[in-house]
Amino acid sequence: MKHGGNIYRFAQNLGCLPRQVLDFSANINPRQAATLDCLQQVQLGPYADPHYGLLKQALQERYPGPPGADIEVFNGASAAIFALLRFLQPDDLVLYAPLYGEYAHIAGELGCRLHTIDRFVDPAADVPRGSTVIFVNPSTPDGRLYDLKDWLDKWRAADCTIIIDESFLDFCLQDVGKGREHDCMNAGGIPSGAQGAMPGAIAEERKLCENKSVAGHIGHYDKLYLIKSLSKFYGCAGIRIGFVMAASPAIEALKRLEPAWKLSSLDMAYMQQALANTAFIGQTRRQTSELRGQLHRALSDCGLFRRIYDGQANFLLAELAGMDGYQLQEKLAPSRILIRVCDNFAGLTRRHVRFAVKDEQAIAELARCLNTITSEL
Amino acid sequence: MKHGGNIYRFAQNLGCLPRQVLDFSANINPRQAATLDCLQQVQLGPYADPHYGLLKQALQERYPGPPGADIEVFNGASAAIFALLRFLQPDDLVLYAPLYGEYAHIAGELGCRLHTIDRFVDPAADVPRGSTVIFVNPSTPDGRLYDLKDWLDKWRAADCTIIIDESFLDFCLQDVGKGREHDCMNAGGIPSGAQGAMPGAIAEERKLCENKSVAGHIGHYDKLYLIKSLSKFYGCAGIRIGFVMAASPAIEALKRLEPAWKLSSLDMAYMQQALANTAFIGQTRRQTSELRGQLHRALSDCGLFRRIYDGQANFLLAELAGMDGYQLQEKLAPSRILIRVCDNFAGLTRRHVRFAVKDEQAIAELARCLNTITSEL
Repeated sequence: MKHGGNIYRFAQNLGCLPRQVLDFSANINPRQAATLDCLQQVQLGPYADPHYGLLKQALQERYPGPPGADIEVFNGASAAIFALLRFLQPDDLVLYAPLYGEYAHIAGELGCRLHTIDRFVDPAADVPRGSTVIFVNPSTPDGRLYDLKDWLDKWRAADCTIIIDESFLDFCLQDVGKGREHDCMNAGGIPSGAQGAMPGAIAEERKLCENKSVAGHIGHYDKLYLIKSLSKFYGCAGIRIGFVMAASPAIEALKRLEPAWKLSSLDMAYMQQALANTAFIGQTRRQTSELRGQLHRALSDCGLFRRIYDGQANFLLAELAGMDGYQLQEKLAPSRILIRVCDNFAGLTRRHVRFAVKDEQAIAELARCLNTITSEL
Repeated sequence: MKHGGNIYRFAQNLGCLPRQVLDFSANINPRQAATLDCLQQVQLGPYADPHYGLLKQALQERYPGPPGADIEVFNGASAAIFALLRFLQPDDLVLYAPLYGEYAHIAGELGCRLHTIDRFVDPAADVPRGSTVIFVNPSTPDGRLYDLKDWLDKWRAADCTIIIDESFLDFCLQDVGKGREHDCMNAGGIPSGAQGAMPGAIAEERKLCENKSVAGHIGHYDKLYLIKSLSKFYGCAGIRIGFVMAASPAIEALKRLEPAWKLSSLDMAYMQQALANTAFIGQTRRQTSELRGQLHRALSDCGLFRRIYDGQANFLLAELAGMDGYQLQEKLAPSRILIRVCDNFAGLTRRHVRFAVKDEQAIAELARCLNTITSEL
């Protein structure tokens, strides 16, 4: 079990059902914004609207872009990444690592020249002129939320094509201003020399927090692409819908290489229902923040970790002190708990493990198991 | 309304609901093999099995390939075509027309050199050595079912990569031997000199009919690809699942350019249920044959057409005598009947229209409207 995610093989090995697995390996909201009832009205016979009118409208209300921006939908963000890189055909691709391995995999298949910049070690490193940069914000597997304003300026100055993956941004508390969240907003990882002076006043913080999405910059730069998965926030990895937002002409060109029908009518009906549940947004943010605190305490209290990274998304990265991630994975397996070892993220080791923010009961069970492991050392 | 298919715009123009449209423009089975009830058990939270194990197993039971063959699933046949052509990157692409316009469109976007062979006029035309050929069997928009054995030999001798789209093959009566169906099986379109002597005996016919799929040849030729849409036969264009069958190493290579997750868990659950309904296969074939007969009589009796093509699939192509297809489309629109004008199929004209085989009631309504149009001429 290298990457987590495949609960089916994990369950098979344990002789249990997939639904009996406590899956801390996948960053999926344990809550869902809609029930399956909405599917009973779907007409499966006809082709769906090839312009995805109602879905696009719902997406654009939830994630408004500036004038001149448009979106193209895909059967999941993973498909969107592939399509976008295939469309852009970058010679030089800059990945800000640690980063989800899929990006490097795709880049390899497409024959791009890869440049990796370690966000933790040398975030202000120069990028090749005219290259394509990929940045995930908040980042995975650490969940750090960056203010990208100065980075954008730098990339634009180098004439880069810019891809920002904001699949986890919805989980972040916007507009908090104080306390724990507030501290983490500052952890941009860029030395102040590179990023400019950090604003001191809380009012300034607020303004920053409200505008972490790069969507507003799309009107000003036609080589900026925003990628968004909906699976994570809406708790439905089984629904394959994601989108790319960019300047209208770029979206027009991207579309030309896309098949006429690609989204499931069932998925579209479900997602429209989920997007209509606007109360879900605030509820999920507050609950994620609260449960992330519980998860943090569970990891911290068991004494197995030498470091727990500050994270603003629905997962936490931790570094083990005495054993490696595969050993911990093995010890947790009998309790049907699946975790993600992060050694396939560039810059991380076998000691780095990631835990998704699950519900209270799952976190309590994880805490119990971690404490048992500690007591048996 | 150029191509049909978009019932949403058609309904909007008429001020009715999409479900009130009698859509003769899309070749979709009016019957379905499963209900939506099966969806209530789907777990939307977790990622689906990245190997699509259960779905692939159901597909391989229904559409068995020879030893050495494998399949890769896609979010619809349209996505499969794009992926396959992108993977093959053919310099020379031979299309056997008349043919669904999407193939030429994709080939154009991918920069292939296009060669069109008219199946009606010069089916035995030579193909460039080393080219990629695309053949749809039974063909659209005419529904002719070909025996491809001799064509395969010819293409192999020219070292071609071969793509056969069998999306409508399930509709054809296999093993009939006599009568109308039997006649049409002979209509291979290749002069007997090119195809070899036509077998005379009915027993021989039967053998041929049972083996119209090229699947069995995949073991013998590693540049043969079979494409299959499931939307048409299973009556669910809203479900996006199709597949490509080819030699295992070819499928392995094709997969490497595919995203990790691409199919909806809802779609997979639905399709597994549909594939399990094996009684549906024979029922649909018999019903399609019966209803195609009714449609044929309706078109024939109204006197508007100079020719109705013999077809073995779930649609019929007809050529108008006195008016063109757009005029007929306009006359049928007030009755909420949508038909497909075929002038964007290479080799056909504005007088060619295609009618899907719909249910008895819809065909009766079409007949009534066609007769009214005739009486008002």
